[in-house]
Amino acid sequence: MTYCVALLMNQGMVFASDSRTNAGVDNIATFCKMKVFEKPGDRVIVLLSSGNLAITQATIHLIERQATKEGPSNLWHTKTMDEMATLVGEALRQIQDRDGPYLASKHIEYNANFLLGGQIAGDVPRLFHVYSEGNYIEASQQTPYFQIGETKYGKPIIDRVITMNTNLADAVKCVLVSFDSTMRSNISVGMPIDLACYENNSLHLGLRHHMAEGDPYFSMLRGCWSDGLRRVFVELPNPQWQV
Amino acid sequence: MTYCVALLMNQGMVFASDSRTNAGVDNIATFCKMKVFEKPGDRVIVLLSSGNLAITQATIHLIERQATKEGPSNLWHTKTMDEMATLVGEALRQIQDRDGPYLASKHIEYNANFLLGGQIAGDVPRLFHVYSEGNYIEASQQTPYFQIGETKYGKPIIDRVITMNTNLADAVKCVLVSFDSTMRSNISVGMPIDLACYENNSLHLGLRHHMAEGDPYFSMLRGCWSDGLRRVFVELPNPQWQV
Repeated sequence: MTYCVALLMNQGMVFASDSRTNAGVDNIATFCKMKVFEKPGDRVIVLLSSGNLAITQATIHLIERQATKEGPSNLWHTKTMDEMATLVGEALRQIQDRDGPYLASKHIEYNANFLLGGQIAGDVPRLFHVYSEGNYIEASQQTPYFQIGETKYGKPIIDRVITMNTNLADAVKCVLVSFDSTMRSNISVGMPIDLACYENNSLHLGLRHHMAEGDPYFSMLRGCWSDGLRRVFVELPNPQWQV
Repeated sequence: MTYCVALLMNQGMVFASDSRTNAGVDNIATFCKMKVFEKPGDRVIVLLSSGNLAITQATIHLIERQATKEGPSNLWHTKTMDEMATLVGEALRQIQDRDGPYLASKHIEYNANFLLGGQIAGDVPRLFHVYSEGNYIEASQQTPYFQIGETKYGKPIIDRVITMNTNLADAVKCVLVSFDSTMRSNISVGMPIDLACYENNSLHLGLRHHMAEGDPYFSMLRGCWSDGLRRVFVELPNPQWQV
């Protein structure tokens, strides 16, 4: 399994992905699920992926090959993030056209999802969720974040905290707490966590951080959050009805 | 969807279930998913159910009919909670033998799960999860709780708080916070919440509480928890790396 989350706020964007892949509990491995395409001053594009690793890797490799050739499928020439989302969706469809029928003949079900965010000079910062079918939706003021993979354990804290007005530092903390909740309840999501922050209109990636097992800040955050929750919990008033 | 949770601790047991059923988002209804069989001084048996409502209701109706007749399937004559779990599993299998083939012929997939907890005089308090197939597992010191239905949103807080040593009042608060997290993130789980508490070896149900929309204690708890989380969140140290 996988857990990826991307947030779009007025101040900027935060991206995070775990690194665990598993094909059954006896086949666990570590792969980075965050891919960054950056040309400072021109564009910052971040892709997070979940699902069948062969499909998502092949899609990214195709996008990379296309980026070395002239033509409309070269990601360095897209004018808007919307075009970029189309490009990712089309690459994903090409890979599925190639591999899908054979996998289907072996009764292998799979999915492949991407979160795509960033900014291209001349366009505003935008965030998309590209579905397994290659179509996509865009984040909005009302729903300024997307998650893919094992999304449920870590959703409540994001729902409680994140709005368009959340600042980047708080957003990073919220995302890490969301990962903590997920990793405590589901062993198929695991360290390291890849983290990236983008300040809107900066056109360069402000932060790229790789948090391995035992990372001091993440360990401290987990401890503080856990202690704080317990404190709040202890202070909750008891019901008046007799228990 | 549904959310039910049951906890078994040294002091006692807590049971809670939501009341929302849905067959598509345009077919929402309210049904109680908690069934209590109690003979004070002799036995307290609580059943929580999730899944196909026709199957779970039919199973409970069968158990009720059996309880009016002599024989090994009469729940008032079972000697242990383990026997009781077998009885529930067998009733569930009978209903599935009756309805399953027809549903299958219409390509209707379904599941039906029960949480079964309580105590019978002469046996210790015990908690079981009866699966759709009629087999079952029992809660243990290491995992003193079970959830069925939409379980993931509300799992992190239970994982953080509940141990065998948690007292009943704290367990009730934890369960309600778990429902709050679930209902905030998933509209298929909804009020009212049915709550029951059993003090071990009392052989009568100490508390049965029905919390409807706007319940003052639950509303206050949601507010306190939300405010408390925000306070803890604000106090979390920022990362030293620049965001």
